[in-house]
Amino acid sequence: MRVNSWTPSEEDEESDMASQASYEALEPATLGARLRDVPGLAERVGGAPETWQVREVGDGNLNLVFIIEGPAGQVVVKQALPYVRLVGDSWPLPLYRAFYEFHALDRQARRDPGAVPEIFHFDEAQALIVMEYLSPHRILRHKLIAGERVEGLAARIGAFCARTAFRGSELSMASAEKKADVALFAGNVEIPAITEDLVFTDPYYAAEKNHHTPGLDAVVARLREHVALKARVQRMLMRFASNTETLLHGDLHSGSIMATADAVRVIDPEFAQYGPMGFDIGMLTANYLMSYFSQPGHRGADLDSYQEWLLEVIEGTFAAFETEFARLWDTERTGMLYPRCLFEAQGHGSAPARAALLREVWQDALTVCGIEMHRRVLSLAHNADFESIADPALRAPLEARNLMMGRELILGAETIPDAVALCAMARRYNGACVT
Amino acid sequence: MRVNSWTPSEEDEESDMASQASYEALEPATLGARLRDVPGLAERVGGAPETWQVREVGDGNLNLVFIIEGPAGQVVVKQALPYVRLVGDSWPLPLYRAFYEFHALDRQARRDPGAVPEIFHFDEAQALIVMEYLSPHRILRHKLIAGERVEGLAARIGAFCARTAFRGSELSMASAEKKADVALFAGNVEIPAITEDLVFTDPYYAAEKNHHTPGLDAVVARLREHVALKARVQRMLMRFASNTETLLHGDLHSGSIMATADAVRVIDPEFAQYGPMGFDIGMLTANYLMSYFSQPGHRGADLDSYQEWLLEVIEGTFAAFETEFARLWDTERTGMLYPRCLFEAQGHGSAPARAALLREVWQDALTVCGIEMHRRVLSLAHNADFESIADPALRAPLEARNLMMGRELILGAETIPDAVALCAMARRYNGACVT
Repeated sequence: MRVNSWTPSEEDEESDMASQASYEALEPATLGARLRDVPGLAERVGGAPETWQVREVGDGNLNLVFIIEGPAGQVVVKQALPYVRLVGDSWPLPLYRAFYEFHALDRQARRDPGAVPEIFHFDEAQALIVMEYLSPHRILRHKLIAGERVEGLAARIGAFCARTAFRGSELSMASAEKKADVALFAGNVEIPAITEDLVFTDPYYAAEKNHHTPGLDAVVARLREHVALKARVQRMLMRFASNTETLLHGDLHSGSIMATADAVRVIDPEFAQYGPMGFDIGMLTANYLMSYFSQPGHRGADLDSYQEWLLEVIEGTFAAFETEFARLWDTERTGMLYPRCLFEAQGHGSAPARAALLREVWQDALTVCGIEMHRRVLSLAHNADFESIADPALRAPLEARNLMMGRELILGAETIPDAVALCAMARRYNGACVT
Repeated sequence: MRVNSWTPSEEDEESDMASQASYEALEPATLGARLRDVPGLAERVGGAPETWQVREVGDGNLNLVFIIEGPAGQVVVKQALPYVRLVGDSWPLPLYRAFYEFHALDRQARRDPGAVPEIFHFDEAQALIVMEYLSPHRILRHKLIAGERVEGLAARIGAFCARTAFRGSELSMASAEKKADVALFAGNVEIPAITEDLVFTDPYYAAEKNHHTPGLDAVVARLREHVALKARVQRMLMRFASNTETLLHGDLHSGSIMATADAVRVIDPEFAQYGPMGFDIGMLTANYLMSYFSQPGHRGADLDSYQEWLLEVIEGTFAAFETEFARLWDTERTGMLYPRCLFEAQGHGSAPARAALLREVWQDALTVCGIEMHRRVLSLAHNADFESIADPALRAPLEARNLMMGRELILGAETIPDAVALCAMARRYNGACVT
């Protein structure tokens, strides 16, 4: 039979039992012994496996993360956990997400060389990836809370978003190859379902897992009573769940970026799925804006200049995205979409077609941005930018600015011309009292 | 392994060889002997298989179609051919499309009982479906050329479009089930590729398989030089190829509908694929409009009244679509999209959300409609409405009206408020000289 006969309802249980039967969560004491036969690993770490130094790191919401160190070097070992630790093991989560993370990393590495950690080994049964240890990189979110700047951040991530969006779509890929990949990733149901619920739906009603800062009730009520707002959010959910334009990172926020003072990598694509081209850059922008709005809780005299730097990062990221997208459009448009026979070969350029497409990508990005600004303050997984502001009386008005700007982005996505206007809007809310 | 490891590039060849090895095109003389063991068939047809009367019918572009008749009744046997007969066997086409046609018929029968022929048997290796014989039904296109009316046509097909669109989407389906089905249909690459090329791209450049009526050169040039027009068509192609809102019929025109004076069935979903909700009704509307514009080549004194009846069918189809979609929205909205917890459970209705969604479906439908009006006159597969007008000097100006209205639909989809305005536009072009 030529067609894909795999159905998750049948095979999920079987193979879950199979992999869970052999699956064993890693422990520091036995890590060396369990990984000693991984091809090339002994050479890379050096010394005898029983002498390897093993440290557990990472916040461990969804995964175990270890660093193995030996005389020759260090590697990272990441293993998926069969549940979400944030809420205890009452929320099971399939181990197969490591499979999708591995495939996403593989595609990202090919589409934007140097953007993601190098992969040394993947063990599907153990849901385990051995990869490059990044040092002295730190999680970008922590650096932004600490007020640190990263040289070249905007250019690097803007290019990453453009390259993965363009090269993962039928602007570039052969349709048969791309459709086979869509079928592969369509096997991932539970992970997108988390985004679908937590991001697009929970913020807009009194969902069980929600919580928000006291003092926000009036603003939250304003969001939840707005039928047109919820209609736009659900329309975006429909586009997120029923759109296979390109392979997304799927969770691109400042916690999925590691950086030094001038080097940047993207990590953790375990939420990779096919979706709209504007999704990744929209979610990322929301996280920059939340950093922006939270800064009065973290900065002193350098508040203004650091906030302005964050807006420069936003403008720069979109500029880099558009520049790189345009370059790829002109040099790598080999897929079936917008073929040259319709444009260049007829003696006129395709720039208006590209501009019209990017205009829609921009509007999707703004809508996703607004939704992400809501869910990180109202739904289950809040972010440290706001959460690390201990005083709710200081935190609430900052979160309120963020919520109300999110609302304006969702309702007015098609009226905001560009990233300059977006940043001007952020400055306006930054001075506002909206509680 | 839980995930779908199927890749078309590897398995296509293998299983093609496998099925082509056992595949044998049907012949009338041996049909009875080959089908004698099909469960239940002997009872349904009656008598001894060697006495069955076998007639070959159908235009046979892509398939062989036979009618088997015996003392107890008749059945239809449809078998896919491994090539497109329209252009000889130089254009191979995978036999597996019978597999997708079977699955599409199965889903359509469940989503809109009575809309499609009953299926009695499916043989995957022979790419063969045995199904209900429809009598005295005739192909709707032939009836429209002959000036015949069909009572209830608009209501029946409008409801079919609404039911298949709604019940095949995550407005209704559980996400896991829908995503598994998306993965299944993602195995179909070659069939969508035909639509992608012939419908969305070929009309807008001098593609090898194109032909058009002499006298249209100036109009064709106006279409092909219009960059914004081609940009909108390619954006729609991107939406068609990268959108899994619902399972489409994929080729819903007046040749895919069989009717009596007052009964209607939908046939031939071998181009079924996931795509935007507005696709089927948009393509169908184009075919009604092409019937409308072609009528001066077919009618006499009854021209005006018959053309007005066709516009009533268009208005009625959209009215029935919206009414049925609204009914299902209120009674069967059980999927993850637009959940009741966000609307009804918060004390306000969801009608504005439904209206906003239907507005986008409408605009997609108009865009698809305009594109279909172009491709049927400029690309490979013309339709009989125009082709059966023997005199090119009569045909060309009628086709020109159709082409120019298609252009306005594509460029102005968001400015046309409703089906009444659409039909008013058709009347305007119908009196116009646009060559």
